[in-house]
Amino acid sequence: MNHISDRFKVTGDKDFSFEDFDPAYTGDYKKNDADKVLAELISRTADAETELYASNRYALLIIFQAMDAAGKDSAIKHTMSGLNPQGCQVYSFKQPSTGELDHDFLWRHYKALPERGKIGIHNRSHYENVLVTKVHPELLEHEDLPESVNLKKMGKDFWKQRYKSIRDFEEHLHYNGTVIIKFFLHVSKDEQKKRFLERIDDQTKNWKFSASDVEERKYWDDYMEAYKQCIQETATTENPWYIIPADKKWFTRIALSTIILDHLRGLRLKYPKLPPDEKQKLKEIKEKLQNE
Amino acid sequence: MNHISDRFKVTGDKDFSFEDFDPAYTGDYKKNDADKVLAELISRTADAETELYASNRYALLIIFQAMDAAGKDSAIKHTMSGLNPQGCQVYSFKQPSTGELDHDFLWRHYKALPERGKIGIHNRSHYENVLVTKVHPELLEHEDLPESVNLKKMGKDFWKQRYKSIRDFEEHLHYNGTVIIKFFLHVSKDEQKKRFLERIDDQTKNWKFSASDVEERKYWDDYMEAYKQCIQETATTENPWYIIPADKKWFTRIALSTIILDHLRGLRLKYPKLPPDEKQKLKEIKEKLQNE
Repeated sequence: MNHISDRFKVTGDKDFSFEDFDPAYTGDYKKNDADKVLAELISRTADAETELYASNRYALLIIFQAMDAAGKDSAIKHTMSGLNPQGCQVYSFKQPSTGELDHDFLWRHYKALPERGKIGIHNRSHYENVLVTKVHPELLEHEDLPESVNLKKMGKDFWKQRYKSIRDFEEHLHYNGTVIIKFFLHVSKDEQKKRFLERIDDQTKNWKFSASDVEERKYWDDYMEAYKQCIQETATTENPWYIIPADKKWFTRIALSTIILDHLRGLRLKYPKLPPDEKQKLKEIKEKLQNE
Repeated sequence: MNHISDRFKVTGDKDFSFEDFDPAYTGDYKKNDADKVLAELISRTADAETELYASNRYALLIIFQAMDAAGKDSAIKHTMSGLNPQGCQVYSFKQPSTGELDHDFLWRHYKALPERGKIGIHNRSHYENVLVTKVHPELLEHEDLPESVNLKKMGKDFWKQRYKSIRDFEEHLHYNGTVIIKFFLHVSKDEQKKRFLERIDDQTKNWKFSASDVEERKYWDDYMEAYKQCIQETATTENPWYIIPADKKWFTRIALSTIILDHLRGLRLKYPKLPPDEKQKLKEIKEKLQNE
């Protein structure tokens, strides 16, 4: 793994603090070179995607979490365009439906897991159940949990149990061939303000503006605290979190793309090799075809 | 809980042995009374099903596992007929499809979980992944697991990890309002032979006969050992197993129905009570309707 993967990785073995991560970090990279660097990374990722598909052993689940306007959508667009859509699916999780709320909180995310050989991107994810739900616990009322296991009865243990559910779920996936990469796009509060103002002033960005996003801004500290706890509790060696600087979009994309490529390469994928007898068969079929 | 629930329950707190469970046990029950007793149990279960549906807090997942010809299908037919199908769904898990095999081993069972307010019956279940798969490990080849986490690499830890996946999965469901009852229908090897012979001799039962079932009979001891380990490793206080005597079908049904009813009653379900202001609203609507 190169320095970008290591610098931003959190594995839960020691306490981490957002203060150790600069949202405006760009390292030695130059904005002028960014397009070229990214194009090269994407081209290699597309090759690795084909190897993933052909070898059909691993699935790759990429999770994007962030504050509003941190750039999740544009990051997905710019790092994933260029891949073959046949091997890559994006799920954007919005407010759950009544039918989804009638199931446990992992259910709708479980259904959407990528199958072997494929890349699945979850734009927001099962983590919302310990983020927005923790900041706004009144949302739990929609889940109709029994009294014996609800927040009132369990107190702090309620969230501990959710973190454990998530850790166990991801551990299970690890042992069944799913590689999970968890990205937190780390934007500063000032940069968020700047981007909200742009969405108001720039007519082509109006569609992205939502008054409720600005409303949520007053819970900034609560969200950051919820993210801190959640990342601390669910980062593991097998399923690490990455805190990605998100104030400079051009650098965000390079960092994401580098880390995805590192993970794919770490799998040491190979095109499946045919056993000798099948190779012989292919040779015979080839001769038949040629003599047709 | 009455004596039937306690007598057959395994919670994993101490070692258990199949020798402590007599497949032909019928207690103080008489075959002549069985129909009447069962009809009464089912009628009460149907009432409890309506309360489960109306209160919409819990889901009930009932798992049936057994050797061939132990009577799973007939047990489901005779204990569940009489319930409202709107609140009750049966899934029979047969050999997984290629698409299902491209996911982790819990995925197809997760998708089929009952929603809040409903009863879900899994005729065979996620447990097959530590039963038939353990007796015939060559089946694992279809799962295309990566080398890093396959049986060859992990050895005994492979099965330990699967038991843990199952325990964690069921613990998560417990904390999200799903009650799980796990039944092992315990038939003797002699009784199985008798039933196979009936399926051959009785033309109306021919359709149930499968030569491969008899073929599997030679793995009887391996299956019983796999069941013993699996039950020992996955029985917990919250999600117990029940070892149900299955040589006398009339008693099997009474035992199953009693335990299901006990679990539903243990939830202390109530029809949802309206808050005073909503009650007042209903009163007003009633008056309007009457004066129409």
